[in-house]
Amino acid sequence: MTLKPLKIKPFFLRKLIYTGFCISLFPLFTNCEKSIAREEIVSETENLKDLAQYVDPMIGTAKMGHTYPGATVPFGSVQLSPDTDTIPYAVNGSYNPDVYKYCAGYQYDDETIVGFSHTHFSGTGHSDLGDFLIMPTTGDLKLNPGTESDPDSGYRSRFSHENETAEPGYYSVLLEDYNIKAEMTASSRVGMHQYTFPEAGTSHVILDLVAGIYNYDDKNVWTFVRVENDTLITGYRQTNGWARTRKVYFALSFSKPIQNYGRERYDQQPYGGFWRKFNQSENFPEIAGEKIKMYFDFDMKENEKLNIKLAISPVSARGALQNMKDEIPHWNFEQVKNEARQVWNKELNKVIVETEKPEDMVNFYTAMYHAFLGPTEYMDTDGKYRGIDMEIHQADGFTNYTSFSLWDTYRALHPLFNVLQPERNADMVEAMMAHYDQSVHSMLPVWSHYANENWCMIGYHSVSVIADAIVKGNADFDQERALDAMVQTAKTGYYDGLEYYMDMGYVPEDRNGASVSKTLEYAYDDWAIAQAAKKLGKQDIYEEFMKRSENYKNVFDKKSGFMRPKLSDGSFKKEFDALDTHGQGFIEGNAWNYSLYVPHAPAEMIEMMGGKERFSHHLDSLFTMDLPDKYFANTEDISREGIIGNYVHGNEPSHHVAYLYNWTDTPWKSQDKIRMVLKDQYQTGADGLGGNDDFGQMSAWYIFSSLGFYPVAPGSEEYALGSPAVNEASINLTNGNTFKVVAVNQSDNNVFVEKVELNGKILITPFINHSEVMNGGELKFYMTETPNRELY
Amino acid sequence: MTLKPLKIKPFFLRKLIYTGFCISLFPLFTNCEKSIAREEIVSETENLKDLAQYVDPMIGTAKMGHTYPGATVPFGSVQLSPDTDTIPYAVNGSYNPDVYKYCAGYQYDDETIVGFSHTHFSGTGHSDLGDFLIMPTTGDLKLNPGTESDPDSGYRSRFSHENETAEPGYYSVLLEDYNIKAEMTASSRVGMHQYTFPEAGTSHVILDLVAGIYNYDDKNVWTFVRVENDTLITGYRQTNGWARTRKVYFALSFSKPIQNYGRERYDQQPYGGFWRKFNQSENFPEIAGEKIKMYFDFDMKENEKLNIKLAISPVSARGALQNMKDEIPHWNFEQVKNEARQVWNKELNKVIVETEKPEDMVNFYTAMYHAFLGPTEYMDTDGKYRGIDMEIHQADGFTNYTSFSLWDTYRALHPLFNVLQPERNADMVEAMMAHYDQSVHSMLPVWSHYANENWCMIGYHSVSVIADAIVKGNADFDQERALDAMVQTAKTGYYDGLEYYMDMGYVPEDRNGASVSKTLEYAYDDWAIAQAAKKLGKQDIYEEFMKRSENYKNVFDKKSGFMRPKLSDGSFKKEFDALDTHGQGFIEGNAWNYSLYVPHAPAEMIEMMGGKERFSHHLDSLFTMDLPDKYFANTEDISREGIIGNYVHGNEPSHHVAYLYNWTDTPWKSQDKIRMVLKDQYQTGADGLGGNDDFGQMSAWYIFSSLGFYPVAPGSEEYALGSPAVNEASINLTNGNTFKVVAVNQSDNNVFVEKVELNGKILITPFINHSEVMNGGELKFYMTETPNRELY
Repeated sequence: MTLKPLKIKPFFLRKLIYTGFCISLFPLFTNCEKSIAREEIVSETENLKDLAQYVDPMIGTAKMGHTYPGATVPFGSVQLSPDTDTIPYAVNGSYNPDVYKYCAGYQYDDETIVGFSHTHFSGTGHSDLGDFLIMPTTGDLKLNPGTESDPDSGYRSRFSHENETAEPGYYSVLLEDYNIKAEMTASSRVGMHQYTFPEAGTSHVILDLVAGIYNYDDKNVWTFVRVENDTLITGYRQTNGWARTRKVYFALSFSKPIQNYGRERYDQQPYGGFWRKFNQSENFPEIAGEKIKMYFDFDMKENEKLNIKLAISPVSARGALQNMKDEIPHWNFEQVKNEARQVWNKELNKVIVETEKPEDMVNFYTAMYHAFLGPTEYMDTDGKYRGIDMEIHQADGFTNYTSFSLWDTYRALHPLFNVLQPERNADMVEAMMAHYDQSVHSMLPVWSHYANENWCMIGYHSVSVIADAIVKGNADFDQERALDAMVQTAKTGYYDGLEYYMDMGYVPEDRNGASVSKTLEYAYDDWAIAQAAKKLGKQDIYEEFMKRSENYKNVFDKKSGFMRPKLSDGSFKKEFDALDTHGQGFIEGNAWNYSLYVPHAPAEMIEMMGGKERFSHHLDSLFTMDLPDKYFANTEDISREGIIGNYVHGNEPSHHVAYLYNWTDTPWKSQDKIRMVLKDQYQTGADGLGGNDDFGQMSAWYIFSSLGFYPVAPGSEEYALGSPAVNEASINLTNGNTFKVVAVNQSDNNVFVEKVELNGKILITPFINHSEVMNGGELKFYMTETPNRELY
Repeated sequence: MTLKPLKIKPFFLRKLIYTGFCISLFPLFTNCEKSIAREEIVSETENLKDLAQYVDPMIGTAKMGHTYPGATVPFGSVQLSPDTDTIPYAVNGSYNPDVYKYCAGYQYDDETIVGFSHTHFSGTGHSDLGDFLIMPTTGDLKLNPGTESDPDSGYRSRFSHENETAEPGYYSVLLEDYNIKAEMTASSRVGMHQYTFPEAGTSHVILDLVAGIYNYDDKNVWTFVRVENDTLITGYRQTNGWARTRKVYFALSFSKPIQNYGRERYDQQPYGGFWRKFNQSENFPEIAGEKIKMYFDFDMKENEKLNIKLAISPVSARGALQNMKDEIPHWNFEQVKNEARQVWNKELNKVIVETEKPEDMVNFYTAMYHAFLGPTEYMDTDGKYRGIDMEIHQADGFTNYTSFSLWDTYRALHPLFNVLQPERNADMVEAMMAHYDQSVHSMLPVWSHYANENWCMIGYHSVSVIADAIVKGNADFDQERALDAMVQTAKTGYYDGLEYYMDMGYVPEDRNGASVSKTLEYAYDDWAIAQAAKKLGKQDIYEEFMKRSENYKNVFDKKSGFMRPKLSDGSFKKEFDALDTHGQGFIEGNAWNYSLYVPHAPAEMIEMMGGKERFSHHLDSLFTMDLPDKYFANTEDISREGIIGNYVHGNEPSHHVAYLYNWTDTPWKSQDKIRMVLKDQYQTGADGLGGNDDFGQMSAWYIFSSLGFYPVAPGSEEYALGSPAVNEASINLTNGNTFKVVAVNQSDNNVFVEKVELNGKILITPFINHSEVMNGGELKFYMTETPNRELY
């Protein structure tokens, strides 16, 4: 049984009809007519400012930012980005803490690139993805990536930031070990590569189907690949990682014919059977197994470019191929690159700012860029997508999205979308409702990605996103059904202590850990449900959930002045360290920070905590106290840079805290603290972010706060005012209105507000509401160097 | 994180809308209107004879028959049948020869039953399937099957054949360890169980998702299950066995609510993550992993019946649920059982025979039953199915089939279908064409099942099936496209020595083993292609493949008088044992048997082998010689019972051999030998079959031979005559005609043909053709005790 298949010959024998439509002349699609969608983009964007020039995708790629520098379009399905290492999630069965650096695949300080994969989360604090890693090489064929300390041991390459460019929709780098220039661009569902090979001869493209982010030795469940003809590869990969049952399909097209190809398997093959008839390692077009790496050889001329298009689909290889055909039916790399930049400019032009310093332009538009990276589109061009029930569904009348990092993003990102991306946000609610419909738990998403619920973090913050949309009137969906889903979700007893919360009014720490965080967040979420019910005239639901929303009171310990874990016998837990993040009844925060988490009732909370004056001083302490070193080791998800005093901005629970002075008699302290945080926590450079960007939540905080207002309690129409960090901003709303923010005399020194006018009328409280923004108009701050203590 | 979910409560909280259509009142569907399809069946079948009474599904369940006794309908997707053991395919990484006994899951001599699974091959010589094993138990919950030697160590139960019934469409057995009466019936896509529990109290139903046929420690790739509500379970299982990437979806409905349920995982869980929030072992509705076993508890009354419907789908859980709704929308077990029997009777009534002895009725109708067990329907009721490209396709205008055991079934089974199942056979060709369209190799199936090519055995015998259909005019498909597919398949150089065969006119044994078998079968297949080309007026293809069809001559060794392996230098292999099955250039046959494999040119072969007289004596030797013991150990797939002299009937390559005397001057010897084989190789009783039934091929041989004619070379219109073993037969053709066979004076002693008349006209050659059968008429044999040497 030693037959060697004819090299490549089957390609030319083979009919080139792929089920349903012709792909025979795929590489010649260049001559096709442009799609209408693309022409629209071009004409619409002619008068746009090139704000993309201010975006630096490198910001956040060092340390804990967890952003990626690669090519993507706004909310795009594909994030084609370099991975600087692919280290295992676990070593000898134990969690490998080094993996945390690689949540987005790229670490700025690394000196080698392993390859370019097509899916990445932006800024998350746990990870997955990194699908379909591609690496061009020359010389001896290597199928393992090698190590950073010995790059020559594998296919990886050294690189330098000097020869690296990252722009919205475009990334390029020189792979020094091979002298190959690598360039990337993307449409929503298609990543396009361009590799310029230096020398004539046989060159390789590695397709590593084992590589991935937060990979495990056995994260791969199954891989299926077909070499359809001499330029087209299709297949899928199923993984069992953060997402338990994740399947991504792909279609890959090369701009010139493969000369030779092959695969290695790195798994046990339980049954080989009659497959042994074939030499499956070389030029055999049907490949399947658990762990597979492939190579494709090309006969390249000196300085010849090889282009690759790789489309992904949640549904099928056929879907991926159709996505490719629909989105990039040609081989013009520059065109795709230019279109991607134009699409970015269209989104960035939604807010035109003028800043005092050039670096603030960079920070602002990079924040805008990061805010528009997710949730990502999750369906084929025909609207088909995979549901959480693993069935294929049709998105009727909405764009389906995935990757809802809701514990983070409900706070400011989705509220920002209600201003800048109203249509997308309403569609995201539809996507959440589809998740609910398909969930066997009948629950809205907690943290969902790629048709999976990963249950990460706590609360049921979908309800906040939906309530915010309903209350703000951005609710182009079935609101009553949405309210049902919110109520149903909030009554899923077996979910994370909820049974106890419903029975006892709090989660008892001896029954379910992080009990205070859960109690507080459930209480806020319940208030959000009540607000939606009120808007929809459902008085009984409103009352039921308003009552639940007061449960925060049940975990307040008057004696210590902090929220404190309570046991099932009704007593507070004895041992208690209000500075420690671990084992104290909280998650990713300590009692100092988390005790302030009553965003829906700040006035009541302040009263409960001793009144306005005492509370104002308490907040001062938070920002100024000296947190002993020992607590840093335990502060999750943030570097020391993410903390100001004991105020943790690098993680989310305190994101509303700087605004709380507005409910005391010292709102000028909010202005001061907000500017301090803006300056301290958001800087240019790869290490510019104080913590994980958390899929745009950190960036959304920056955008709102720079513009002078912030949604302390999503689910309310109300924004609290702060201190704008821009001189002027025009928010170009999709309803055609423009809301202008003007900050007269704004500077690093003039951080205090002398007075504020809305449409020429002086404001006497530090609040505006959403409809005032959406109606257009002008919010004019007069800035000064010293606090105006009588302002509001 | 110790929260215990509320027991079962979520069911009642949960909305009961399953995506797309209502399942809320699923258990109450009894009151729905009967489907039109079912009413048609009932009215059509009123005048049918109850021939099902003669069928004994137990025949072939002992030793090597590899049939199963369970419930199924003709060509049904579900084969709901008891498995008496589920032993591993490999032990310590090596093939476990004991697994071979369990190709169909059941071995008559076993004393315990492990459970009832829903998919089984009939009579195959390798295996897979055994999906979704269900076992009812009482007492302590056990999730492992235990061993036959210590049944109490697991959930299996002792049983006895005295308390066992097997009929077409129905199976029942008493599970002695639990005193549970188990009954099974089925529609095409749904298996229906009925368990009568003896005592009041909590009883269990085990759903073992790890169990399977030809299972491996790691055959399971992934399992996904949802407990949708308190009576409905959905999910899928993916395996990597004989089929490399096989996925089967299911929907399971219980006739009464679950009291309690749970699962155990028997795999490593690489990433648990926030799933640890839940106790996933008990009453948690979302279950996924590699190796999962589930249990469901029910509160049963004394002698209460529990019914289960389990529907399968190649597409989706939604598809499975729709299949259930479409096929069995009620809970009336007796109705399903009766309908299954009626459907069987409809098929069995296609041939009405009268036999001399009652046991021949049993043999004949059991052969009919076995012949109609496969290929099996492979699509949802809406026509959707999974293609070999793993994509979902729509069967437009045909029923899709799977499980093509073509090396076996092209010989007599598909020709039988061209007589008795013309519509199904044309649809099977469409299914083969769909496989071809979806194959990355652009090849027709070799041995395919469940959207996989397993490449088992040799040749490309799809072409024989298609050519036979074209030549016989049963070709309601695009014949020119089919011819293209046949030619394309026959030119796939990298397939199994074909490159050498095309270049050199034979497969050289030093390049590719079993080279003589391959050369001979390719040559026959090529002749079949030529016949189709001729019929379609493609003279160039006809000539090209007629030339290839003569390649059998290239491996004939005049010196030894046998087909013999030739090396790439053109010389015959030196060491050669014409009696040995192994390492001699043949597969599943020795030179004595395989040398006769030129079904398309018997006259030329006979001439080549020394002329008619010498050949006739040579055949005599085959049937009468004494094969030394040492060769038995090596004779694959057959017991000693499967051999007459050195003639191997228990495997396929010789199935035409007894008819070859017709091409000599001694056709009376064919009559004698055929009757000897019919009597010797087909008997009643569980051990009645001489070898694997091979998905109906052995049975098809029995049917044709009993009726007095046989298709020696499918792809020709010609049938060779033998000696009918029935007194009379009416073949009720679907075109409305009746072809009658009458055998005057037929008996065990009167096996020779005195004369034959076709429609009253004496035949002067031992051949009739297909159109003569299909036009209806009468073939009348006059039987006698002594040979008529002047007959033809």
